[in-house]
Amino acid sequence: MEMNIALLPGDGIGPEVIAQAVKVVKAVGQKFGHTITFKEGLVGACAIDATGDPYPDATHEICAASDAVLFGAIGDPKYDNDPKAKVRPEQGLLRMRQKLGLFANVRPTFTFPSLVHKSPLKLDRVDGVDFVFFRELTGGIYFGEPRGRNEQGTKAFDTNVYSKEEIVRLARMGFEAAQKRRKLLTCVDKANVMATSRLWRETVQELASEYPDVKVEYEFVDAVAMRLIQWPKAYDVLITENLFGDILTDEASVISGSMGLMPSASLGSKVKLFEPIHGSYPQAAGKDIANPLGTVLSAAMMFDYAFDMKAEADTISDVVNLSLAEGYVTEDIADGGTAYKTSQVGDWLAAKILG
Amino acid sequence: MEMNIALLPGDGIGPEVIAQAVKVVKAVGQKFGHTITFKEGLVGACAIDATGDPYPDATHEICAASDAVLFGAIGDPKYDNDPKAKVRPEQGLLRMRQKLGLFANVRPTFTFPSLVHKSPLKLDRVDGVDFVFFRELTGGIYFGEPRGRNEQGTKAFDTNVYSKEEIVRLARMGFEAAQKRRKLLTCVDKANVMATSRLWRETVQELASEYPDVKVEYEFVDAVAMRLIQWPKAYDVLITENLFGDILTDEASVISGSMGLMPSASLGSKVKLFEPIHGSYPQAAGKDIANPLGTVLSAAMMFDYAFDMKAEADTISDVVNLSLAEGYVTEDIADGGTAYKTSQVGDWLAAKILG
Ligand SMILES: CC(C)[C@H](C(=O)O)[C@@H](O)C(=O)O
Ligand SMILES: CC(C)[C@H](C(=O)O)[C@@H](O)C(=O)O
Repeated sequence: MEMNIALLPGDGIGPEVIAQAVKVVKAVGQKFGHTITFKEGLVGACAIDATGDPYPDATHEICAASDAVLFGAIGDPKYDNDPKAKVRPEQGLLRMRQKLGLFANVRPTFTFPSLVHKSPLKLDRVDGVDFVFFRELTGGIYFGEPRGRNEQGTKAFDTNVYSKEEIVRLARMGFEAAQKRRKLLTCVDKANVMATSRLWRETVQELASEYPDVKVEYEFVDAVAMRLIQWPKAYDVLITENLFGDILTDEASVISGSMGLMPSASLGSKVKLFEPIHGSYPQAAGKDIANPLGTVLSAAMMFDYAFDMKAEADTISDVVNLSLAEGYVTEDIADGGTAYKTSQVGDWLAAKILG
Repeated sequence: MEMNIALLPGDGIGPEVIAQAVKVVKAVGQKFGHTITFKEGLVGACAIDATGDPYPDATHEICAASDAVLFGAIGDPKYDNDPKAKVRPEQGLLRMRQKLGLFANVRPTFTFPSLVHKSPLKLDRVDGVDFVFFRELTGGIYFGEPRGRNEQGTKAFDTNVYSKEEIVRLARMGFEAAQKRRKLLTCVDKANVMATSRLWRETVQELASEYPDVKVEYEFVDAVAMRLIQWPKAYDVLITENLFGDILTDEASVISGSMGLMPSASLGSKVKLFEPIHGSYPQAAGKDIANPLGTVLSAAMMFDYAFDMKAEADTISDVVNLSLAEGYVTEDIADGGTAYKTSQVGDWLAAKILG
């Protein structure tokens, strides 16, 4: 098969981890006989530095013409703590999501037996955790109008807004995922306070009859923030709006003890995007020490979700598990053993796939 | 001194735990020579059942005429999962906060050495945790207009709105608390996305120069949701808006392993309100098994915050610690030892204060 992949390395450690994913994807292509073309684009702080725009048109064209996007990370400390900055890297991310129609962010949380001891939670709480968030990604308070200040600048406002269709399309993804998993769907909202949340709950209640095999639970966002730590094994599939999803998926990301390994997918249109959940980690940039496994596992998700290639995806997961088993890993998870470089881990994984 | 205390037992286990706090407050009054008058009002589901209104005028008059309010809990399962219900218990809570001008919710998180093993977190992460949230309580998306639906009912919207003054008065409380503690203030916002958050950050940056002894950190709400679990000891005082505070204080409440013991205060006007952070726990209602210590410690906060009576407050904390040390506690924290009834714990605490 022919596959066109857009590469958006972004900022900080982004280029280094993307480079390893590329090695792995190339190796899989070679092994399975796919012709893979890569095109690279700028996004984030590096795009601002080069063009003044965090998501240049040229980058959008590369993404829109691709079959899938592999994305590293964005963000640079020089743009933080300046609430008045006119252009910010994050704006690139938000415009990219909107222009590519990526309305669903899929974030699995699962454990690796060899890493679960790194969790801040006790073993009995976290061992075997396996849930997935479907976060709405192109609506809500991130994009709602009006937003801004009054004339004197003494009052600020944001608008949270959701249409039934936006909720339906996200919720259906959640229901369908639940059908293939443990058949439990948790709708996370704040229906006791927010009008948008009441529309979410109502809409999900209406849809539920179409998925009689799925058990649906409704929980307030504050309760989920507690139960995610108290008993994360209680969850299977969670669906929620953009802002709640931002907070809860980040909270969830620290549970498994393997944040550096967690992948994610953003879906919704022909072009799908895949990225590790970790950030741009500027302190480590250029040092060849960042853990590439989150990006490599995002590439596995790409084969699965974008190309429906299960065998290719499993090949990647298998070599990642092998690298963990053999301790061929970066310093963050080396646990006193030899710490390998980012680039060495990429080389090793690619070699194992081909060997 | 003369003290007029309004009692709002509310729903579920509320009446049972409030009854124990009353015993303790009476004992402290007797010991220190205060004349304490109690007046009881209805709020929540029980108020709807009796009057159709979750916060009846009669209740408001009792509260407004009091020096302090002791509040139990509200909520009844019969009002859940009905997004179209016209009257809900929570509306009573929100109206009460607004009409009493309680714009700041103060929620300490600290550990009890004898209970910290109940935390879902590992001991080294949580041992000695000691931070306090100042959550804005009468603004933001909880009250902003417009909110509702379009005519067809296919679109819903909420408005998040903050004025500079609302931020200033809450932030000042946080700065002053930090000055009396470890002098670290964390401003929690989503300034990379929300206009209201940018006003929060800007306003706090302006105020910071008036408190040169306080170190101020700015963190995004999603990052705090992670770090609260990864390294909760990093925090001292946190300030945030209403919705973020709702989510993060609940997340924080499970960290210490002693949720049933955590008190809270709502401040802002002449009348201050004190309540345990736990909910109405309907499954336990009427069984005389609920842990009253959260409400008892809220009464301690009342002596401290509402009446500036440190010795009285300490007397209560001391007997609570004694009850923990001697294992005179309810089943949720009995840990295999004898489980005492809610009412027995109240009697024991009052007797110890007087004895
Ligand atoms: C950088 C920021 C705008 C972004 C978000 O809030 O969506 C990030 O936190 C994320 O979750 O991808
Ligand atoms: C019951 C609900 C409206 C309330 C809130 O969201 O403020 C509760 O969660 C709280 O934190 O006191």
